[in-house]
Amino acid sequence: MNLREDEIVARLRNVLDAPINTRIRLGIGDDAAVWQPSRSHRSVITSDMLVEGVHFSRETMSLADAGWRATVANLSDLAAMGARPVLATVALGIPPGANIEDLEELYSGIAACARGAGLAIVGGDLNRAPALTIAMTVTGEVRASNCKTRTGARPGNVIAVTGSLGASRAGLEEARGRIRLDEPLREEALRAHRHPQARLSEGQYLSASANVRAMMDCSDGLSTDLARLCESSRVGARIESVPMAPAARAAAQALRQRERDYALAGGEDYELIVAVERRAFSHLASRFEKRFRRALHRVGVFRAEPGIVLAENGGERDLPRTGWEHFAAR
Amino acid sequence: MNLREDEIVARLRNVLDAPINTRIRLGIGDDAAVWQPSRSHRSVITSDMLVEGVHFSRETMSLADAGWRATVANLSDLAAMGARPVLATVALGIPPGANIEDLEELYSGIAACARGAGLAIVGGDLNRAPALTIAMTVTGEVRASNCKTRTGARPGNVIAVTGSLGASRAGLEEARGRIRLDEPLREEALRAHRHPQARLSEGQYLSASANVRAMMDCSDGLSTDLARLCESSRVGARIESVPMAPAARAAAQALRQRERDYALAGGEDYELIVAVERRAFSHLASRFEKRFRRALHRVGVFRAEPGIVLAENGGERDLPRTGWEHFAAR
Repeated sequence: MNLREDEIVARLRNVLDAPINTRIRLGIGDDAAVWQPSRSHRSVITSDMLVEGVHFSRETMSLADAGWRATVANLSDLAAMGARPVLATVALGIPPGANIEDLEELYSGIAACARGAGLAIVGGDLNRAPALTIAMTVTGEVRASNCKTRTGARPGNVIAVTGSLGASRAGLEEARGRIRLDEPLREEALRAHRHPQARLSEGQYLSASANVRAMMDCSDGLSTDLARLCESSRVGARIESVPMAPAARAAAQALRQRERDYALAGGEDYELIVAVERRAFSHLASRFEKRFRRALHRVGVFRAEPGIVLAENGGERDLPRTGWEHFAAR
Repeated sequence: MNLREDEIVARLRNVLDAPINTRIRLGIGDDAAVWQPSRSHRSVITSDMLVEGVHFSRETMSLADAGWRATVANLSDLAAMGARPVLATVALGIPPGANIEDLEELYSGIAACARGAGLAIVGGDLNRAPALTIAMTVTGEVRASNCKTRTGARPGNVIAVTGSLGASRAGLEEARGRIRLDEPLREEALRAHRHPQARLSEGQYLSASANVRAMMDCSDGLSTDLARLCESSRVGARIESVPMAPAARAAAQALRQRERDYALAGGEDYELIVAVERRAFSHLASRFEKRFRRALHRVGVFRAEPGIVLAENGGERDLPRTGWEHFAAR
């Protein structure tokens, strides 16, 4: 099936009916769905599946790490909506030969990540399956006025990200034994790969600002995710500067790869991509830095012309989507 | 792993922390979890996973049927809480060789079942996986005073079920070509296997009665599910009469199997098991029959002595759990 994930989603969306319930405020196509259980409340729901051999391998991470990663993937979607996590269900597919200790280890990672986020695991489902499969759904809540989607970016808005990119891919190369970085870069890379953080506090903080127009999480690589944000908002983007994680730079040098690809196509970084009103950006960024002791990096600007371009050597070149798209020929 | 599903759940529950959020009213161990988004509202959340080759086969049902079944499995859990469905997310694992038409067919079944239940599909996740995997999570809502759990059955309560049992297993035998029933039994059996119904209206109706003390859905066979209900309520049960679907009787005869096993161990019937105050049962059953044009069958009584016994030939014998337990040696 030589279709991109987004193309498959569009086809499947056609098969479904539009939401019937008028209290559903946001359906397919954003980081998470939003509904209104009562007039003043908004619930946010998101699902992610992790499959052994596709999304993780026991050669590069423990099952506890895989449980952590599955949890972060969902929490990051909530972060992108400005939501606070409440509860999760976990459906497991269990392969022949798995033993109870494997499952307990997996759950220890889920529990550790959930604990830090105030997330309660409230149920799930156990099934036999050909590969270890973790399907998690997380429900959170957000103030109606704070809920940020992918559709609000406007030409002229600053494109910002909440952290540097590429460390997770560097960690994968390290865990695979393809490189051996010096400390503390090695530690930075492995932590990014095995214990990424969802930017929940940052998402809640940013979502409270009226100058933040759109947010999404950056889990499939900046080039892919920014293209999605642009399509949803019907804008284009010009990338001027990509904040690279030091570990990503070092890994790219060691493997003689292009540094930039680690950030643009690496994926699994779980930072937030944010559209900010231009005149408000520097004030917001300095408040953000004071509060979280990390930079809100300016990456470029949204613009009216569709497509994404990369500013380079005084000119511009088109940027193809190079991230992790699940079904495309790589 | 020679552990029953319930035993695995107990082990994994030990790894997790207790829910942190006091607004979580019901966690692991019931048909669904319940939380309180605002003071007067209750949200109900449940997850189910279906894996090709484990839960369904394309030899006995179409992908549209599999989509329907995945949806019903979740809706049935909501029915058992007395809840009304609102929205669902669908995470798909897609095997190599699947094509977009397969996925569209699967979604057509999801859409058809969702439409009938007023359920909106609001999002999901697409992934590569070794086998076609459908992980669905459904959120519904229920009035706080109506929410029924598995813990409320008391000695002396009548055990009732909302329909006859065993037709789904008869349909599986029919679809496998092991039997060839006469019409209309053939049709009844195949429909039960491929297009089961979740007892949503019945669940909402029963949950509104103060004389209904506990409910759960019967998806893994009466002997297994009743044992779970008894454990949760710390009671035992005496089964006096099992309502058999005519198709199940016919299939058992054709295959020279015990009729009763189709109901006790067959699974996938999606009727509700209900604990009803003894003195209220006959009045409730007659109102139920008038309303739904189907019987509320009396199966037996809950009692204080633990364990489940079957009344037989004027005596009693212990009933082992013989249903579909996913991980046990069959």
